[in-house]
Amino acid sequence: MTSMKCHSCTARAAIRMRQHRLALCKDHYLEWFVEQTERAIKKYQMFSHDEKILVAVSGGKDSLALWDVLWKSGYSTAGLYINLGIDSEESYSQESERYTREFAAERELTLHVVNVAEMYGETIPQMTQRTRRGRDKPCSACGMVKRHEMNRVARDLGYEILATAHNLDDEVAILFGNVLTWQADLLVRQSPVLEAAEGFVRKVKPFVRFYERETAAYTLLRDIPYIEEECPHATGSKQLYYKDLINKMEEEQPGIKLAFYVGFLNTKEKGAFRNLPEAAEGLELSPCPNCGQPTTSSGLCAFCRMVNI
Amino acid sequence: MTSMKCHSCTARAAIRMRQHRLALCKDHYLEWFVEQTERAIKKYQMFSHDEKILVAVSGGKDSLALWDVLWKSGYSTAGLYINLGIDSEESYSQESERYTREFAAERELTLHVVNVAEMYGETIPQMTQRTRRGRDKPCSACGMVKRHEMNRVARDLGYEILATAHNLDDEVAILFGNVLTWQADLLVRQSPVLEAAEGFVRKVKPFVRFYERETAAYTLLRDIPYIEEECPHATGSKQLYYKDLINKMEEEQPGIKLAFYVGFLNTKEKGAFRNLPEAAEGLELSPCPNCGQPTTSSGLCAFCRMVNI
Repeated sequence: MTSMKCHSCTARAAIRMRQHRLALCKDHYLEWFVEQTERAIKKYQMFSHDEKILVAVSGGKDSLALWDVLWKSGYSTAGLYINLGIDSEESYSQESERYTREFAAERELTLHVVNVAEMYGETIPQMTQRTRRGRDKPCSACGMVKRHEMNRVARDLGYEILATAHNLDDEVAILFGNVLTWQADLLVRQSPVLEAAEGFVRKVKPFVRFYERETAAYTLLRDIPYIEEECPHATGSKQLYYKDLINKMEEEQPGIKLAFYVGFLNTKEKGAFRNLPEAAEGLELSPCPNCGQPTTSSGLCAFCRMVNI
Repeated sequence: MTSMKCHSCTARAAIRMRQHRLALCKDHYLEWFVEQTERAIKKYQMFSHDEKILVAVSGGKDSLALWDVLWKSGYSTAGLYINLGIDSEESYSQESERYTREFAAERELTLHVVNVAEMYGETIPQMTQRTRRGRDKPCSACGMVKRHEMNRVARDLGYEILATAHNLDDEVAILFGNVLTWQADLLVRQSPVLEAAEGFVRKVKPFVRFYERETAAYTLLRDIPYIEEECPHATGSKQLYYKDLINKMEEEQPGIKLAFYVGFLNTKEKGAFRNLPEAAEGLELSPCPNCGQPTTSSGLCAFCRMVNI
């Protein structure tokens, strides 16, 4: 990859991170990556070794890396895989489920699997085809289903924490979109930790400070097999568009991604957005009459409106 | 330009504005442009017909358009041209001064001219070459000189209002840079109107809601000669880089520029950033011992530190 030396020993560097002015060999990189995860967990007071953590896993590099690090660090974890039924051409869901099951079996970890079609009678492609929200914004509809299911399973099975593997690139793309349209309600809630609230488990994102290429490097260097394809539905999504754009900025200004995200968290911490009406949390939540999950709607929640025909 | 019809009459449209879903012929465009300016002046309570307005003019399309509109609308205006001495290759300053003088003479308007080299013994290129700040960020150093001189002249000559022709593209590029690094002090102060404060005149930007191509179209359709070259020093500046990037986003999502800027103003209006320590204005300003303008520095202000050898 590079002819540079590792900053911690004399070995050849396996990865160079311009944004951190750091180059490391394979062993020191894997060590550094675990330490950095631990640091984020402590910094944002995510969880302790006594808590039961449900890790949302997709079979991709980020979520398998997260589960691997938490497992190696001795946390009490189980996985949750949600099969979305996206199998038209590349058998995307089948393949990603296989990777996830193999990962769990190899480490003798508990994996919960939800199959959307079995649970709700339709795959995500069928659901998004049928509904207007799905046709307009398939990624947003799919995200809503996943959030609903993650929260449901975590509560039903008694997990205190739900961990997702959003990395810095993910968070920055989300933040970028939220800032472009100044979505105050979303800005207020975008955080490495979302505290538990009536009907919601605690949500944490231990990888928020990792660049995507850092989680990719970890998975590669640890030889973890994962699904390399992007979801075929994501092609042309705004999220991917923003990621490309921000990657171009990062090339010009190494470190801008981290500065943008950390600057946002600091600004919020200092009190920006606190005054906004949108910051008043959970004021109008009530349980959905069908699924029981909290919703701002007076009738069925958005998930049940989409799922129930 | 387009085969569309004007929305207000049957003539062929001279300009189509996707962001406003509007196409207009030459006459109706010029009318619309003046009305929109008037609307911004009222909306942000910028100034009345009784106040004396100093318009900062560079000889470019935006500032000559602004002066033209304010003049046509019967406001009491004079111009201020600052000759920066940027004349190495393209005679940029000489040419832009000529355009400005011709514009003022044709309309029998008062034009004040400041020549930086005559006033301070050095041109901007000489100043930026000599100083570290200038070498690192020539546009930022030049901007500082211009802001200092605009405020000085307005105060010395008794103008109550200083009007600059920043358009939406300018504001969005500035906002984009400020948001990327969450420069809270700059976010707090970015506004179509900066109220007068101890030592500072009132600053207004009547063109903040116009796209750059709208001011360009106005200047062209009004047959106002202006300097078309960009400042040779601006090549490769962050500002231009952000503008390009945002223009690409605008192509994908027409209207995103205006939504980004107006969303920011609304979010600020609703109270975001108000809690920030950076929002406490003018607390530590004291007059510069040399020029008398307010500064946060305990000694000379940044301008005098740069100018005085």
